[in-house]
Amino acid sequence: MTTRSTIMDTNSFRAEHADALRPEIRQLTDKRDRILGESYRLFYRNPVHLVKGKGQYLWDAEGRKYLDVYNNVASIGHCHPAVVEAVSQQMQQLNTHTRYLHENILNYTESILATTPAEIDRAIYMCTGSEANDLAIRVAKSFSGGTGIIVTQEAYHGTSELTSGASPALGSGQALAPTTRVVPAPDFYRLTPSDPGQWFAHEIQKQIDDMKQNDIKFAGFLADSIFSSDGVLPNPPGFLKAAIEVVHKNGGIFIADEVQPGFARTGDTFWGFARHGVVPDIITTGKPMGNGIPVSALFAKSDVLASFSDHIPYFNTFGGNPVSMAAAQAVLKVIQEENLQGHSRVMGALLLTELRRLQQKYRCVGDVRGAGLFIGFELVTDPESKQPNKALALDLIERLRDQGILTSVAGPYGNVLKLRPPLAFQAADIDWLVGGLDRALQQLCP
Amino acid sequence: MTTRSTIMDTNSFRAEHADALRPEIRQLTDKRDRILGESYRLFYRNPVHLVKGKGQYLWDAEGRKYLDVYNNVASIGHCHPAVVEAVSQQMQQLNTHTRYLHENILNYTESILATTPAEIDRAIYMCTGSEANDLAIRVAKSFSGGTGIIVTQEAYHGTSELTSGASPALGSGQALAPTTRVVPAPDFYRLTPSDPGQWFAHEIQKQIDDMKQNDIKFAGFLADSIFSSDGVLPNPPGFLKAAIEVVHKNGGIFIADEVQPGFARTGDTFWGFARHGVVPDIITTGKPMGNGIPVSALFAKSDVLASFSDHIPYFNTFGGNPVSMAAAQAVLKVIQEENLQGHSRVMGALLLTELRRLQQKYRCVGDVRGAGLFIGFELVTDPESKQPNKALALDLIERLRDQGILTSVAGPYGNVLKLRPPLAFQAADIDWLVGGLDRALQQLCP
Repeated sequence: MTTRSTIMDTNSFRAEHADALRPEIRQLTDKRDRILGESYRLFYRNPVHLVKGKGQYLWDAEGRKYLDVYNNVASIGHCHPAVVEAVSQQMQQLNTHTRYLHENILNYTESILATTPAEIDRAIYMCTGSEANDLAIRVAKSFSGGTGIIVTQEAYHGTSELTSGASPALGSGQALAPTTRVVPAPDFYRLTPSDPGQWFAHEIQKQIDDMKQNDIKFAGFLADSIFSSDGVLPNPPGFLKAAIEVVHKNGGIFIADEVQPGFARTGDTFWGFARHGVVPDIITTGKPMGNGIPVSALFAKSDVLASFSDHIPYFNTFGGNPVSMAAAQAVLKVIQEENLQGHSRVMGALLLTELRRLQQKYRCVGDVRGAGLFIGFELVTDPESKQPNKALALDLIERLRDQGILTSVAGPYGNVLKLRPPLAFQAADIDWLVGGLDRALQQLCP
Repeated sequence: MTTRSTIMDTNSFRAEHADALRPEIRQLTDKRDRILGESYRLFYRNPVHLVKGKGQYLWDAEGRKYLDVYNNVASIGHCHPAVVEAVSQQMQQLNTHTRYLHENILNYTESILATTPAEIDRAIYMCTGSEANDLAIRVAKSFSGGTGIIVTQEAYHGTSELTSGASPALGSGQALAPTTRVVPAPDFYRLTPSDPGQWFAHEIQKQIDDMKQNDIKFAGFLADSIFSSDGVLPNPPGFLKAAIEVVHKNGGIFIADEVQPGFARTGDTFWGFARHGVVPDIITTGKPMGNGIPVSALFAKSDVLASFSDHIPYFNTFGGNPVSMAAAQAVLKVIQEENLQGHSRVMGALLLTELRRLQQKYRCVGDVRGAGLFIGFELVTDPESKQPNKALALDLIERLRDQGILTSVAGPYGNVLKLRPPLAFQAADIDWLVGGLDRALQQLCP
């Protein structure tokens, strides 16, 4: 979820400056405004009209090449031939629902459960991360007998009514559920507790106590371990451990939303939560799982899931169909055979080093942090006050766009560049990205 | 949604008779039981292990051919080459989200909005019918300022928390939302009001009045116009009209859930609601839209949608991506160019005639009704009492399975065969289906 205010700003800017757009672009934006729901928002004041993708690159209708530093859906690379081939082949054979027997769902489940902690031994498939989180919250309620869900301050977990009600990132227009409680984001750039783990655990306990006082029984804590919408907050590894102990001590479950950090993205581990040495009760996934084919999943401990499945039916028509499973299997195979996890770790470390050089050079780069190829690049007015500089971040993404570098912003202040390229990202791309940032910052933050 | 009790029965039977299964099948069912969530249920005491599909036919691992009389997902036929080609081509070009410009979403929206009433002029895309209905209910709440939703007695509208709470078909394990009210199904085989339309309108009004008494403001009426889960209740055409007038008079909206009747299925019209001469405020779709690719949509009147979009962000990562839109466009093109709507009308009428011959022949066939290739075939103990005969229906679908005919049951009593083949269904297939039914009924209902 890109910070709502940023998108709104961009759209209103575009509306005011529509005349400046090239006629081909204007034609498309006008048509969108006319026939799509008003919820549709475009990136950039001068939107990008894409026609082609390959690996970490995208091309627009004019033939201009872009470096994609944003999309984790095309997780192993845009139009990866292994996924195209797997989907095309399976579509020619059979695509139907899971009330008939088929090997693909079983083969994939065995492959993916081999990557999770042993306690996580059951799978259910759906089509989107929202659907996975919606079901996960319902399971948390069944298992705990409670309704209270804790999320972080700027968390985003989905588009359904239930998940929207646990997504403060959607802003004030979308009310949080009365049973949702919010803890501060683990922003250890600004907050400097002596023990980050204990501090975060204490914040969780405070919200559980508040629930008790309001006769809300605690059901669980839902978080993506990289805290993407909160501004990309991966460190220090392990700080979640104490919080998860508090969650369990209070009878709740931990739902690890791996839509963002999962599938080798964070480099050190296949799953984001593993960087913290914790075992979730439920893992949810989505975006990167099928490299663009809509497939998502919920993996859970048997006893946790049984509390729901024993009495509530759940059937997702498209979920786990042979084509979705073929796509997911192809993605997993490429990640494993090409060691994209190791690649993400190495490339991420190289990129981080280069970005930290920029931090040394420009006072407005307040912090650079990341895990593998998931990096937050935080813009501030000055390193002393650490005051978020959203205007600069917005200008910066527009300047990058003009240099063919696609990314966007995150965080409660909309001032953190979210750098999250397809895992096909290579060392040579670092030059393009860092060179582009350097040129833009020279002008914007002299 | 196949009636839950039927599925449960089948699964417990299978568990008890697991030793009778062929070893290859047993291996697959055992693995499912071990690693998938317990919610997963199989059709048939002797489950079918499918490996191939083409048009209206499916093949199992033994090479046995089946006639598919159940799946509306493979709406224009299993593995339709036009959809395979469109998806393969687009996957090789580009697949990304809607925050960049792309023609596919705009071209498809223009094509599909040309099939809806002129008042319906906006589109939003997601991946499943559940997601479409979840959003539709949220829009109904925004527009009306209320929370009360009316559905029919055995309605099924989705798997999310919000839509499950409006899906009595899920059974007693899944509580309805406190703001959901239920009207009787328009079962005019059993109920014989002098004016069906007025009767149904009155039932709606009664529930709105009940809401008022309980301080619940009415938001809308959500129904699929073929009342699939209620047992396939298409007639008389036009009976919904008075009810929709009541809905509007009371400030609510009508959400036409077209996951079941939409996309030319009912023969007379492209959309199911059109058989009733009504204009919905929102149309939701799903299953048949992409012939198996997970794509769904919400089409709405501008002013209704704006009440939501003005203040609540909605972004569905996979929704409306170029590949989904290519699949949907291919499906629509085939329906239109091959006149599958006319085909469905003609084939449906032929099939209905033949099924009525069976009704004449067997006293346990209580009623046969349908619209296009969506037919309910109702089993009773005798035509006088009209007492539902669920046991017979269950035996019948098992006997049909043994003759290579795949279908399932619907309705509150689980006694209605839901006959809903891919639109590729041909006259020759009628012989297979009706012959199979005849043979089975000779034994089961002599």
